[in-house]
Amino acid sequence: MSTGTLTIDLGALAANWHALAKIAQVETAAVVKADGYGLGIERVGRHLAEAGARQFFVAVAEEGVILRRALGSGPVISVLSGHMHGDADAIAGANLTPMINSVDQMLHHVEALPAHPFGIQLDTGMNRLGMEPSEWSALREIALAQNPTLLMSHLACADESDHPMNEHQRAQFEDMTQGLDVPRSLAATGGTLLGDDFHFDMVRPGIGLFGGLPFAAAQPVITLDLPVIQIRDVAAGETVGYSNAWTAKAPSKIATVSGGYADGLIRAMGPNAKFHCDGMAVPVVGRISMDLITVDVTALPTPPASLQLIGAKQSVDAVGDFASTIGYEVLTSLGARYTRKWVQ
Amino acid sequence: MSTGTLTIDLGALAANWHALAKIAQVETAAVVKADGYGLGIERVGRHLAEAGARQFFVAVAEEGVILRRALGSGPVISVLSGHMHGDADAIAGANLTPMINSVDQMLHHVEALPAHPFGIQLDTGMNRLGMEPSEWSALREIALAQNPTLLMSHLACADESDHPMNEHQRAQFEDMTQGLDVPRSLAATGGTLLGDDFHFDMVRPGIGLFGGLPFAAAQPVITLDLPVIQIRDVAAGETVGYSNAWTAKAPSKIATVSGGYADGLIRAMGPNAKFHCDGMAVPVVGRISMDLITVDVTALPTPPASLQLIGAKQSVDAVGDFASTIGYEVLTSLGARYTRKWVQ
Repeated sequence: MSTGTLTIDLGALAANWHALAKIAQVETAAVVKADGYGLGIERVGRHLAEAGARQFFVAVAEEGVILRRALGSGPVISVLSGHMHGDADAIAGANLTPMINSVDQMLHHVEALPAHPFGIQLDTGMNRLGMEPSEWSALREIALAQNPTLLMSHLACADESDHPMNEHQRAQFEDMTQGLDVPRSLAATGGTLLGDDFHFDMVRPGIGLFGGLPFAAAQPVITLDLPVIQIRDVAAGETVGYSNAWTAKAPSKIATVSGGYADGLIRAMGPNAKFHCDGMAVPVVGRISMDLITVDVTALPTPPASLQLIGAKQSVDAVGDFASTIGYEVLTSLGARYTRKWVQ
Repeated sequence: MSTGTLTIDLGALAANWHALAKIAQVETAAVVKADGYGLGIERVGRHLAEAGARQFFVAVAEEGVILRRALGSGPVISVLSGHMHGDADAIAGANLTPMINSVDQMLHHVEALPAHPFGIQLDTGMNRLGMEPSEWSALREIALAQNPTLLMSHLACADESDHPMNEHQRAQFEDMTQGLDVPRSLAATGGTLLGDDFHFDMVRPGIGLFGGLPFAAAQPVITLDLPVIQIRDVAAGETVGYSNAWTAKAPSKIATVSGGYADGLIRAMGPNAKFHCDGMAVPVVGRISMDLITVDVTALPTPPASLQLIGAKQSVDAVGDFASTIGYEVLTSLGARYTRKWVQ
C-alpha cells in the first residue's frame, strides 16, 4: 500500500457534536458542506444523524442530493447558496431547503417551486451572502407571507471572540428579525462559543465537529499517516528535492514518504512542517512535491515504516500554521488518494 | 447549478502530447499521476492512449489499478513509488510495472513476484527516489540479470533550463547506465525541453500535457468558470468577508461566486487573485472562504452570471503566482465539486 492512511474517529465526531449541543442548549444543526469538511459527507452525515442531528447544512444543491440519499427522508437539509438557476429539480427531488440570498432568488424560487420550503439569509455586515437590511425591509412582508422556515445570518469575525464586529452583527440580526414568528440562527462554531446571546433558536457548527479551532476543547477527529517509500543516507553538502532547496549540514538519513500537494498537503508548508514518530518530531526538508515529501529522520532510533502528519501530537490547525493558513483549509483539502479508515 | 464548471479540452491535451513527442523524437510516455493532474485519470488516460501514448506513469499502485481498467491490457503502466509492501496483488492483477527504488524494494519484488516486469529508478542527485550510485554499483549485476524493462531517473532543476544541476544529473545518469542494454529515461516535461542529450530512449512528460509551464508553447487545456450567486451594492467604508479583511474605498458592486478553498482555490491567493469576464479583469476582495469568493465587479458594464478564473486569459501558472505557488499545485488541487465538461 503506497498511499497514506486517513483515520477518522466517528466517536470523536459525535462527541464534538454533543459537546457543542450542550453549550448551545438549543437545536444544534451540523454543517457538512465541502464533502463533510473533506472527510466524506455520506458517512459523516449518517453518523451525525445517529448522534441526534436533525438539521444539516450544505453549500450547494449537488451536495444536498448526495446527503439526502445517505440520510433518507427525515432530516432537514438546507442549501447555503440558496436557489440557483438550474437547481429546481434537485431541490424538489431531494427535498432540500434553499437558504434564499436575494430578491432575485426569492422570485425565482416562488415561481419555480411554489409552496416548497425555504429559509432566508440576511446580511448583517459580512457582505457575502444574504439580503441587505434595505432589501429585507422592502421584501419582508411578502417573504413572511410565504412562511419561511428559518431566518439566518453569518458572523464575519466569530473566531476572534473579542472582535466588536460580533456584537454589531448580533444587534443587526436582532434588529432585522425581532418579533417575527420564525426560527432564527446566527451562530456557527465560533458564534456557539460566544455565549447565549448568539444562539437564538439554532446553532450551526461545522469546523468544531471535525476537531478544528476555534473549538479548542474539541476532540481530534483525524489522524494522517504516510508510508515511507525509502530511506537514504545523504552526505553533508548534498542537496535534496526540487531546485536543490535543502542542503545537508551533516550526514543525514532522509525518508521519502508517499503523499504530497496533490493529496492536499499544501506546498507552502514545506520549510516549516514536521512529522511525528514515536513521540519525536522530525522536520520536512526540501520542497513538498506532488506525490512525495522528504523528511530528515536522522534523529529517530529505528527506521520508520510510516510518519504521522496529523494526530494527537499535531492538530489540523498546527499543520495549517505551517502553511500560514487555517485548519479549515487543511481539512477540506484532504485528497482522494488516502485509504480512509473509519473507527468508532 | 451552483457549482463551478471545469471544461477540459481533450483536443488540446492530445495536441500537447503530439507536440512534445515531436520535440523528443523518441518514445513519449504520459505521466497521469495525481488523478491525471487533477482532471480525471480515466478519461485523460484513454484520450492519450488514443493519441498514441503506449507508456503511462502513475505515482501509486492504486492509481495504476484504476488506469488499467480504463486502458485495457495494451499499454505499459509504471508505478513511481515502486513495489511497496501490500501492493503485490495490485501489481500482479493489473499488470503494473513497479519502478524499484531501493535494494529493499528489489528483494521484496523478486521474492513476491518472481519474473514480474519491473524498472529501476536511479538517484542522480535529487535524493528523493531511487538507488544511490553506490547501491547501484553493488547491485547492478544482480539487477540486470532479472531483465529490468527501464532504467530511469528524475531531474531536480529541469524547470530552470540553465541550472548546472541539469548537466550534472545527465552526466551522472550516463555514467550509471552507459553500455547497458536496457532502455533509459531521464526527462519529464522540463527535461524534454532541455534538448536531445536529455531524451535517451523515452521521455515522460506530465505537466506539459496539461498546459502548464515549463512547456510555454502548450495549448491551455482547462477553463474554470464559477457561477455568481448574488451581487450587492457595498457603500464606501463597508467591509467584506471574514475578519473584515477588505474595506470599500468607494461605492462598489460585489459579486459572490460559488467556489472556494474547498474546491482547491488556494486560500493564500486571496489578496492577489483576479477573475475575468468579457475581456476585463476584476479583483478578488476579502478572504477566499471555503465555498465562496467575493469579487469587485464594479467595473463591469452588466451584471455577470459567471466569472472565469482559469482560461485563455489566465493560465494555471498565473493563478499559481497569485498564491506564490506553481501551476502544478493549482491543477492537482482542483476539487471534486465542479461539473466537468469534456470537449474535443
